[in-house]
Amino acid sequence: MTTVSNTTLGPASDSAQLFELAQQLRVDSVRASTGAGSGHPTSSLSAADLMAVLMSRHLRYDWEAPDNPAGDHLIFSKGHASPLLYAMFKAAGVVGDEELMTTYRRFGHRLQGHPTPVLPWVDVATGSLGQGIAYGVGIALAGRYLEKQPYRVWVLCGDSEMAEGSVWEALDKAGHHELANFTALIDVNRLGQSGPTELEWDTDSYARRAEAFGCRAIVIDGHDLDAIDQALTTAADGQAPTVIVAKTVKGRGVAEVADKDGWHGKPLPEDLAERAVAELGGPRDLRVRGPQPPDATPAPAPAAEPVELPRFDLGDKVATRVAFGKALVALGARPDVVALDAEVGNSTHAEDFKKAYPERYFQTYIAEQQMIADAVGMAVRGYRPYATTFAAFLTRAHDFIRMAAVSEITMALCGTHSGVEIGADGPSQMGVEDLAMMRAVRGSTVFYPSDATSAAALTAAMADVEGISYLRTTRGAYPVLYPGDETFPVGGSKTLRHSADDQVTLVGAGVTLHECLAAADRLADDGIQARVIDLYSVKPVDADALARAAQDTGALVVAEDHHPEGGIGEAVLSALSASGSHPAFAHLAGTDLPGSGTTDELLDAAGISRAHIAEAARTLLKR
Amino acid sequence: MTTVSNTTLGPASDSAQLFELAQQLRVDSVRASTGAGSGHPTSSLSAADLMAVLMSRHLRYDWEAPDNPAGDHLIFSKGHASPLLYAMFKAAGVVGDEELMTTYRRFGHRLQGHPTPVLPWVDVATGSLGQGIAYGVGIALAGRYLEKQPYRVWVLCGDSEMAEGSVWEALDKAGHHELANFTALIDVNRLGQSGPTELEWDTDSYARRAEAFGCRAIVIDGHDLDAIDQALTTAADGQAPTVIVAKTVKGRGVAEVADKDGWHGKPLPEDLAERAVAELGGPRDLRVRGPQPPDATPAPAPAAEPVELPRFDLGDKVATRVAFGKALVALGARPDVVALDAEVGNSTHAEDFKKAYPERYFQTYIAEQQMIADAVGMAVRGYRPYATTFAAFLTRAHDFIRMAAVSEITMALCGTHSGVEIGADGPSQMGVEDLAMMRAVRGSTVFYPSDATSAAALTAAMADVEGISYLRTTRGAYPVLYPGDETFPVGGSKTLRHSADDQVTLVGAGVTLHECLAAADRLADDGIQARVIDLYSVKPVDADALARAAQDTGALVVAEDHHPEGGIGEAVLSALSASGSHPAFAHLAGTDLPGSGTTDELLDAAGISRAHIAEAARTLLKR
Repeated sequence: MTTVSNTTLGPASDSAQLFELAQQLRVDSVRASTGAGSGHPTSSLSAADLMAVLMSRHLRYDWEAPDNPAGDHLIFSKGHASPLLYAMFKAAGVVGDEELMTTYRRFGHRLQGHPTPVLPWVDVATGSLGQGIAYGVGIALAGRYLEKQPYRVWVLCGDSEMAEGSVWEALDKAGHHELANFTALIDVNRLGQSGPTELEWDTDSYARRAEAFGCRAIVIDGHDLDAIDQALTTAADGQAPTVIVAKTVKGRGVAEVADKDGWHGKPLPEDLAERAVAELGGPRDLRVRGPQPPDATPAPAPAAEPVELPRFDLGDKVATRVAFGKALVALGARPDVVALDAEVGNSTHAEDFKKAYPERYFQTYIAEQQMIADAVGMAVRGYRPYATTFAAFLTRAHDFIRMAAVSEITMALCGTHSGVEIGADGPSQMGVEDLAMMRAVRGSTVFYPSDATSAAALTAAMADVEGISYLRTTRGAYPVLYPGDETFPVGGSKTLRHSADDQVTLVGAGVTLHECLAAADRLADDGIQARVIDLYSVKPVDADALARAAQDTGALVVAEDHHPEGGIGEAVLSALSASGSHPAFAHLAGTDLPGSGTTDELLDAAGISRAHIAEAARTLLKR
Repeated sequence: MTTVSNTTLGPASDSAQLFELAQQLRVDSVRASTGAGSGHPTSSLSAADLMAVLMSRHLRYDWEAPDNPAGDHLIFSKGHASPLLYAMFKAAGVVGDEELMTTYRRFGHRLQGHPTPVLPWVDVATGSLGQGIAYGVGIALAGRYLEKQPYRVWVLCGDSEMAEGSVWEALDKAGHHELANFTALIDVNRLGQSGPTELEWDTDSYARRAEAFGCRAIVIDGHDLDAIDQALTTAADGQAPTVIVAKTVKGRGVAEVADKDGWHGKPLPEDLAERAVAELGGPRDLRVRGPQPPDATPAPAPAAEPVELPRFDLGDKVATRVAFGKALVALGARPDVVALDAEVGNSTHAEDFKKAYPERYFQTYIAEQQMIADAVGMAVRGYRPYATTFAAFLTRAHDFIRMAAVSEITMALCGTHSGVEIGADGPSQMGVEDLAMMRAVRGSTVFYPSDATSAAALTAAMADVEGISYLRTTRGAYPVLYPGDETFPVGGSKTLRHSADDQVTLVGAGVTLHECLAAADRLADDGIQARVIDLYSVKPVDADALARAAQDTGALVVAEDHHPEGGIGEAVLSALSASGSHPAFAHLAGTDLPGSGTTDELLDAAGISRAHIAEAARTLLKR
């Protein structure tokens, strides 16, 4: 039995030493997962050789200074191989054996089942497959086009996850942007969670696909240390985005589980773990110090210019998406602001930013998942991304937004063309579930402005909001309601109509606020005074103003251009409930399948037009 | 000026006649969109030649009997080219010129901005790009493996949408399943919505990608009628899934807009439209009768066997996902039930169905979007699909679920491993926003069983629920609460603890119901009688039982293993508000980012454990 201890491996380590390191990574993967009673040891064993060579010879990384701007990035897209990642951290000397053995997958500790940025050496949370590679492309984009730093991005992928379309969105962008600083290593171990993968060991198919998407592909035996080293050397030559297709064996090194089905996501039982560790040559205590990062590019960010938000004249009809575009251009004065588009920039007005700041505008074409992944990658690197598409199409990226929240990313999203308001294009283009989606994102902030002034102000506010913020905008042009110096605090609201005699409160946002105002006029004609609240901040919501209105008027009508579930109505009910307010309440929201039509026809058909709002108010008052 | 009128074109029509038809399709595309004042004429013009040849010579379709089981299927994945599709309907004689000219994109009419199945010749709604091709694969799968009918599926795709990862999930499956009955025609017109596409006219790149994903690729000039005919003949040879990469010109035939940027999604102004129609040779009145469908396969579906649901013993600990798997196997007695898996079938128990009914089980590997698209395609063909993955990963397919609702599809979804309950795997695997997503789906039904008996019964109920139904299941095993003959109506609930002296009501579902029961025990120890409601039907929700509980007890605690937004708590508030009930209310739901841990640790950290529920009840009672 070979035992090697207290040796430090560096870039010049020989193959025998690399083998020992790989075996140590395997041993620690087995030990950690058996100790935790759960985890994915066999998925770790297949990639141990790849990672041993990478961390010793190619990953230019300062383990003591993970924030070195020139340091490489390593992403485990196959996040379930966390035992291997954490074994690497141990080999790097930043995690101790005791932490690995006693805290992995335990409550309150950082070595979680799937890696998250709670760990200083982890950029993004992974565990939803097909995402890590996309975030890697986003970071590589930032490195090459924004920071212009010399770092490289290395992504370890599983083979099962290559079935996700998001992987091909990512590789397409790696090719399109010629991201020579990007390398994906595909650990083709043939076995997925519940049986053989679709392509099993057909490494040539993976290579053909990668090449067809504009990347350089290198097929190797993923357990041949010299072949790995050569492939990584080529990948680092700065010539092209590279996909290393490594044929490997799941459970490699432990005969009882190697290439055997039924061992995915299962720790080895203690007796088998003991035999495995022995077969792997026993525990080792090798340390690794791979190459250090090169000098960082001495490119201090340009100073921020003052942001001069656009001004709009009261009463002029301006679409909130137009105001968003103009405000985004104004925000461009901040050098950390970047804009991402999914080939609808002329509709969303994200394109305005392109004209002003082409170097900080990124066209991701119709690939919403990669648009969000690029935003996440740029946020990881300290930028404030604004990613925009139709509200309806943000649903395409829901899982990426969900995972960005797990990564505790700060980014701004804008969804345009919300609701049935859009008219003739019909239901496929109508975002009527986006508020439910975005409210349920952990830690999110959700804005829904009704006029250009508030849209611009809230667009600017998003640059300073922590976490994921969302701006919902509207297709059509509506009157400017606020003067340019009006402020719109997060969690606030505006009371646009107000008197001592208010009998009912009408709550709207976006197009329905304008309908509420018109309904208030109609009610006034009947001698009914209605308070009107612009609920521009949907999350957090202005519970105080709502409770006050409930107390003052005793009756609330909420109208929203959204499905009834998870949107403004339920946000209001939650707030009222929390404050113990129980007004008479009417909730107007669309439930039937809309078709094409004019805005007025569709608002009316959805039951959220001025006529319906006024009628709902009258009905409440008759109770 | 050529004028041809009242001629009927058939499969033997010559090139000159096909040219006339193509020009007619162009003329009508221009006329319809100009008449409507919106629409996408230039995107229609590029594909007119492809569609003229297809409908005359290759689309085996009985326009009078669109439900002919052997008839081909045509899907416009580029749904915005609806003017072209509707012009084809006119040429087929099923839509009149007056309908085309006076109702396109108008309120209350069926010729909507993007096609939907309101039209009898449309299988699925499109307009969210990258989806039609995926649905086409689903229908082709059904045709080849379920129905064994001789129909072919033809999908017209735009080039911009080839950037969507979902397209590659679809083509991968077309190749994997050797869908020789599937053909995609890519209309490579080089210009997207807001400028050139990523690959512009690089037709070879499209071809290489299609081939790498297992399809046969044919590159043609998309305006060469003979080349189109040859390519379609090859595509129909039954040898392989085929991708026809057609180089075309956006706006083809109208010199003022052809290959010009800035004309996407814009109708031609009236004067330009007049010149365009003249340039195109003026209006025509050609009729097309292409080939008829072959004889349908005389394969009567096997008779349904009686469904014998699994029975569970009271008190035994059984996971709801296990009960789902067993019930799904039982439902297999119905020959219309099919199961779809995203390579997690051993965790979700969808795999149980594979063992019993391998011919009706479909492994889509880790490609959730295509899993839903396959389900939609099968539903279009009359099957009752059950598609299953982790609740967290269903978010990956949110846009497909949204569009399935626009298509008014009936299908059953099951999301397993919901909530923080799952434990050590950590937040990436925890579905804590799925209820918000699924409640906000138009017309959806949402179930969340707490025990095996109800899980099995609700799994069975989903086979008869119209629209999209969702079953949320739990990882861990919990006691069976109900005897096998208990019934669980849609929109019902179960009151598990009840007395004349109830002071508070505890509402839970899934794991939190068990916590509520334990909390009720603790409260009873303190002399507080608590009613406990199992809210297994989250949408529709049992408003009567909730109102009764509110009236009887005056205080409600809702605990849910989900984010606070859009889930059970807000469903309950909406129901209470609608019924005018205003109990004291406490809503327990997780808001902080969870990590790894045991179920008990994580429930407690999320504030939804028995201790927190009991404490919330006590606090309400002290008010």
